[in-house]
Amino acid sequence: MSYAPFDWIDDAARRRADAGLVRTLRPRPSAADVLDLAGNDYLGLTRHPEVTSAAAAAAREWGAGSTGSRLVTGSTALHAELERELADFCGFEAALVFSSGYAANLAALTALTGHDSLIVSDAGNHASIVDGCRLSRAAVAVVPHADPEAVRKALRAHCGRALAVTDSVFSVDGDAAPLSALADACRENGAALLVDDAHGLGVLGEGGRGALAAAGLAGGEGIVATLTLSKSLGSQGGAILGPAHVIGHLVNTARTFIFDTGLAPAAVGGALGALRLLRREPERAAGAGRVAAALYERLTAAGLTAVRPEAAVVSVRAPSAESAVRWAADCRGAGLAVGCFRPPSVPDGISRLRLTARADLTDEQIAFAVRTVVATAPVSVS
Amino acid sequence: MSYAPFDWIDDAARRRADAGLVRTLRPRPSAADVLDLAGNDYLGLTRHPEVTSAAAAAAREWGAGSTGSRLVTGSTALHAELERELADFCGFEAALVFSSGYAANLAALTALTGHDSLIVSDAGNHASIVDGCRLSRAAVAVVPHADPEAVRKALRAHCGRALAVTDSVFSVDGDAAPLSALADACRENGAALLVDDAHGLGVLGEGGRGALAAAGLAGGEGIVATLTLSKSLGSQGGAILGPAHVIGHLVNTARTFIFDTGLAPAAVGGALGALRLLRREPERAAGAGRVAAALYERLTAAGLTAVRPEAAVVSVRAPSAESAVRWAADCRGAGLAVGCFRPPSVPDGISRLRLTARADLTDEQIAFAVRTVVATAPVSVS
Repeated sequence: MSYAPFDWIDDAARRRADAGLVRTLRPRPSAADVLDLAGNDYLGLTRHPEVTSAAAAAAREWGAGSTGSRLVTGSTALHAELERELADFCGFEAALVFSSGYAANLAALTALTGHDSLIVSDAGNHASIVDGCRLSRAAVAVVPHADPEAVRKALRAHCGRALAVTDSVFSVDGDAAPLSALADACRENGAALLVDDAHGLGVLGEGGRGALAAAGLAGGEGIVATLTLSKSLGSQGGAILGPAHVIGHLVNTARTFIFDTGLAPAAVGGALGALRLLRREPERAAGAGRVAAALYERLTAAGLTAVRPEAAVVSVRAPSAESAVRWAADCRGAGLAVGCFRPPSVPDGISRLRLTARADLTDEQIAFAVRTVVATAPVSVS
Repeated sequence: MSYAPFDWIDDAARRRADAGLVRTLRPRPSAADVLDLAGNDYLGLTRHPEVTSAAAAAAREWGAGSTGSRLVTGSTALHAELERELADFCGFEAALVFSSGYAANLAALTALTGHDSLIVSDAGNHASIVDGCRLSRAAVAVVPHADPEAVRKALRAHCGRALAVTDSVFSVDGDAAPLSALADACRENGAALLVDDAHGLGVLGEGGRGALAAAGLAGGEGIVATLTLSKSLGSQGGAILGPAHVIGHLVNTARTFIFDTGLAPAAVGGALGALRLLRREPERAAGAGRVAAALYERLTAAGLTAVRPEAAVVSVRAPSAESAVRWAADCRGAGLAVGCFRPPSVPDGISRLRLTARADLTDEQIAFAVRTVVATAPVSVS
């Protein structure tokens, strides 16, 4: 008898190939060969010499790894510094750093709810939030996108602990969550509000303090934020920000904190370097928004359909998955890297190009990007 | 009406305090002030100048972060190099790097099973495996620890796809899984075998090629391994190793791969530096095992109860959670850091001290460690 426990994988691969949905890794070279409007390096800090030096120095001083779980040997004084400065910058009492934003969302959703809880989750939330909901013991109500009335209704119908969760800026379309209205709905119903500010930190709020600071909600008793160190802060990792007793609870109960190795010192140092640079040069935050607005204005003026960007993500509609793939490939061929979202990673079935504004783009680079996207657009949208 | 959606957290904190189970972060200084037998830096490579230089150089050359998801901008040529060399070293066809071993286990367990699958999981498996089981759509059968007959029985009772999952070396007690017998049980029943080699890589097998190489199972069609870059390789991150078609499937379907930011270049570079060093100096692998055996022999000769170490983890029994905490604190006071496992992180309720062997420990350091653990032992065990 032949032993082939993974033969079903080949059937799945054939189905993907037939549907034109095969994903392939394309490792990039060290020196950029295209203009990158696909990454999430919103402030252009990933390769900033101050940030890379801070990362390199941390590796040399503290080691290439943290050596263990944060509760055993994986907490260095550098982790504590980053947590203090992140909390202070964003206006929260305390912060806790994770090895990724994904791990932070899993932690918040599982440790801040129980089997008697209700989680009310926006239909457009990031995959890590969806997985956190699944991993929790809570009941989950998925509500229509950016609909505070639906959140209010779901919360009202539940007796017991509840938590509403939303991205602050949605990754696919770059639109913003109605945070104030959501906070009102939560407050009225005694529910907590968890906001993933992955795409808001560094771009929104005064000096890039994030979407919750911008909405005047940072530091509130019922408010918890998750964020990532790998986008505006140009490094790697995630964090949870909230009241000190909530952070203490996470230290004691969050499985993706307790049973994971602590974030590597280089990533901690890099994020800390970027944060300090941003504090010193707060105008960088507005820069990303300005570039996004310029991209949006010029692309729509050229006849393309795009979503008005609330932060640094500009989403352009494509007529089909196939044309989106071709469009992105044509952009790349012309020297411009853009993101391409298509099913199954967009549950609404709408394919898009995704352009990310970088605060450090020049006028010439913006003009080149617009020219390229417009020139390569499928006939039906141009 | 007061708004205090997290007041239940204070009740939980009081209960923890009453039970003496409060966990607190203790950030460590850069210069080690104690002898560290608590971390997982089994080969002593985290601070090796070659490894920290490789990490620092990668941050300078590639940036402090990877800038995006592995499928968008987060795959560098350095990631591809590490994947190639990891697969080659461990004897597998292909490898895929994740931001953590936790994420790798979540990916393998969710993407390699479906709603019609059965996962058979050892009762002593790591938290990330438990969470991966929960997050999967599969039915899960938890079987007694290290019991291939129980695995065989569970597999036999199931029709359809199946996967057995085990740690190669169990984190708490340092004992080894019966890999050959498990592989037989899987093969007989057409099931796949997933092995988390977090604590075997770098310590077991020829030159540290891991537990699967040691068992002659590496590279088999039904065999998939997860491992971590944060223990023997002194860095951060995780990986999945397996047949190329399995790795291709993960690239296309594993949510913690697709929707996570790629591992930071410094972590990739650090792991690659450590791997190359280990290939050049294969005797390091046996060193960790020798130190573990020496610790075990001398601790048990002094009357303590310990589990015979199969790799680098030496587990010593403590009479109670309270005495374990005091014992570890007394060791620390005397200049020795050791791990302390107690409920709820050990489901069997047995508290232990956990000592990790480091290949680079001197005879004097081993003697000091033994002397300290014995001198501080609770009266009832010494």
